[in-house]
Amino acid sequence: MADRVPAPGRIRPAPEAPRGARRGFLKRALAGGAALAAGRAAAQDGANLPPNVPEWTRTLGAPVLASPYGVPSKHEAGVRRRESPGLTRTPHSSVAFTPLQSLFGIITPSGVHFERHHAGMPDVDPHQHRLIVHGMVREPRIYTMDDILRFPSVSRVHFIECGANTGMEWANVAVPTVQYSHGMVGCSEWTGVLLSTLLAEAGVDPKAKFVLAEGADGAALTRTIPLAMALDDVMVCYGQNGEMLRPEQGYPLRLLVPGVQGVSSVKWLRRLKLGDTPWNTREESLHYVDLMPGGKHRQYTWIQEAKSVITSPSGGQVILDRGYHEITGLAWSGRGKVKRVDVSVDGGRNWRTAKLQEPVHTKALTRFRIDWSWDGGPALLQSRAIDDTGYVQPTIRQLRAVRGTRSIYHNNAIHTWRVDATGEVSNVQVL
Amino acid sequence: MADRVPAPGRIRPAPEAPRGARRGFLKRALAGGAALAAGRAAAQDGANLPPNVPEWTRTLGAPVLASPYGVPSKHEAGVRRRESPGLTRTPHSSVAFTPLQSLFGIITPSGVHFERHHAGMPDVDPHQHRLIVHGMVREPRIYTMDDILRFPSVSRVHFIECGANTGMEWANVAVPTVQYSHGMVGCSEWTGVLLSTLLAEAGVDPKAKFVLAEGADGAALTRTIPLAMALDDVMVCYGQNGEMLRPEQGYPLRLLVPGVQGVSSVKWLRRLKLGDTPWNTREESLHYVDLMPGGKHRQYTWIQEAKSVITSPSGGQVILDRGYHEITGLAWSGRGKVKRVDVSVDGGRNWRTAKLQEPVHTKALTRFRIDWSWDGGPALLQSRAIDDTGYVQPTIRQLRAVRGTRSIYHNNAIHTWRVDATGEVSNVQVL
Repeated sequence: MADRVPAPGRIRPAPEAPRGARRGFLKRALAGGAALAAGRAAAQDGANLPPNVPEWTRTLGAPVLASPYGVPSKHEAGVRRRESPGLTRTPHSSVAFTPLQSLFGIITPSGVHFERHHAGMPDVDPHQHRLIVHGMVREPRIYTMDDILRFPSVSRVHFIECGANTGMEWANVAVPTVQYSHGMVGCSEWTGVLLSTLLAEAGVDPKAKFVLAEGADGAALTRTIPLAMALDDVMVCYGQNGEMLRPEQGYPLRLLVPGVQGVSSVKWLRRLKLGDTPWNTREESLHYVDLMPGGKHRQYTWIQEAKSVITSPSGGQVILDRGYHEITGLAWSGRGKVKRVDVSVDGGRNWRTAKLQEPVHTKALTRFRIDWSWDGGPALLQSRAIDDTGYVQPTIRQLRAVRGTRSIYHNNAIHTWRVDATGEVSNVQVL
Repeated sequence: MADRVPAPGRIRPAPEAPRGARRGFLKRALAGGAALAAGRAAAQDGANLPPNVPEWTRTLGAPVLASPYGVPSKHEAGVRRRESPGLTRTPHSSVAFTPLQSLFGIITPSGVHFERHHAGMPDVDPHQHRLIVHGMVREPRIYTMDDILRFPSVSRVHFIECGANTGMEWANVAVPTVQYSHGMVGCSEWTGVLLSTLLAEAGVDPKAKFVLAEGADGAALTRTIPLAMALDDVMVCYGQNGEMLRPEQGYPLRLLVPGVQGVSSVKWLRRLKLGDTPWNTREESLHYVDLMPGGKHRQYTWIQEAKSVITSPSGGQVILDRGYHEITGLAWSGRGKVKRVDVSVDGGRNWRTAKLQEPVHTKALTRFRIDWSWDGGPALLQSRAIDDTGYVQPTIRQLRAVRGTRSIYHNNAIHTWRVDATGEVSNVQVL
């Protein structure tokens, strides 16, 4: 260990996250980890505390239930969702991004999980909310929340990624931080009923091939889901990370379509209609289509292919010292499990395989970590995910060769952070 | 499915959790899941919304970043930590319990994770906080939070259970709800540095056998940890469920001793001292000892043995309808993984094996679920956990035969909920 963790060394967080970033509480040049005669600073066992003991050890703290529902420390106020100024015309049809640079592990705290609304976030009364199942079914149904909560339940860890995540980079816009470049993704332990359970109850017409899902928000957002997908692992969820869904995640009920662009996981779910053709609703014909080089749109491109990004060090941070640093980030695949993540520090010339946090869940964020010793010179940090179908995350050059540069959605290219000789980390495209 | 999920049927939540309990949003006798001509209530595809569409579908909702750090719906205000009135003399040395009856899956939301303080919850400034490693080491060290965050990290899912959880039941007190009977347990994805990594850095004297951990709170709480345990899976944690620790969980740094009574996972960790004998500090000689039938105390009883409890239906709830209900609950073992959970509805005469939520983590809460059709008669619901060492959760009779009735700590007995013919669920002891 000793040779891998030299005494002084920090990463300074990005300016917009002054505290609580992955690393970098301190900007001071205080020697960290230095040996010190313990007797001088340590409390004496069983004796009175010496005078340099901090105030909070000398006083009573706050009582229990100071917060019946707890919140983060005031020192972590910088770790929050953020809106990209000017990205959308109104804050009711907009996005607030997950602060990936400040997070650990694979669970995204519900309080900072990205939000994307089309007509704002409704305040739905669970006593009045209903879910309708109709169309090509034997017995149409209307369920109360009570009914839904009574069905056999499952809990599974899955990511949700907006189809437009990293969309700015199609056109060479170097978004400064990972919060803005990749922050439309989150991962939770979701609880609910398998859609297949509800559909078995309603009795699906053998001729049905698609499900239309509709939200109860002002946008009455609608999406078509292929029936084969609906009967696989799609969930009707009421729980997220152990508690009821948050309002911005669809309280009290949302669809979860694992591995598929987030818009399909319809929030505030009020209606499921079975039919035999796709509906071609506004949100699947005018939006969420991929403009190809020839001028045609690809429609119904559901799956979020394998993707990864390094979250630390990442854009806007400053590496203050040479020597040991852990490179860490997230990988995911809409096809299944992440099998391997490779990391390069020289722009893709050489790759090493990172450690994956176990257990790896299917269609879930997967944390990778790898040791790195920074020599003080320029570096180009990249990560490359490979999933259990064998699919390899492409370079932006490979992706553009097929898709051109006019897309918004489904950019899963390898991402590059440049470290310059001053330790500043920024977003560049390596073509 | 259809025969397993009859149309009307709910569980009414416990009185102190009027909303948002595991089941039971509605007390009305509205027929749920009833077939209904869909055209009457469903929105018309592409047409104007019919007049019975709720207000929140007719209006714009709240903009993004209505809460930069999100909180639960106002309709879930009943899902919160609770203090047991009169349990302790002051709220600074007290407990607030996890609302297990309202939770899903295995992750305990940080906002409702139980809290137990000995001198209140301090507000620690991470810029000033230090961790000292000293005693029988080659090189004493003082670490800043920056230093700690720079070490190679791990994230693991583990439970923390207070040694006194379910302690009232030693003496036949029938605590009314699962929040009060078992709510001193929680489970999180913890992130930090393995203690073995820090100890390798300091260089442990080959004669050292124990570690003393000390908190920076006003209690300066201290606990002895055997070195073999410290070098196994003990973590020095700064992250919980993806973000920095909450203040009531030891922000910015705590010890995590997986599988061991919670008091050993010292919060606001400021000091680790290596030595060759246990310290016998106040919290390990006057408290957290087990009074045996002969009048002697057992000391240093660390491990939380295999245990389980049904969280729904549970005490204080009312089952409103006969027919299908999912019985669900949590199991855990301080020795490793939960291998099997059996459920009885007749007070332990007959047992069926429940489904376990996958993946099962070691020393972590494990969600079990099993189908049940309530016939409207009295029932005695029990669960019994078996871990991968082969240990079987004991009955209270078996436990008392060894330990008597004067203990406070380490009650892991099989727990019984009685369902009476009116559907009311209460806590009884089956001897």
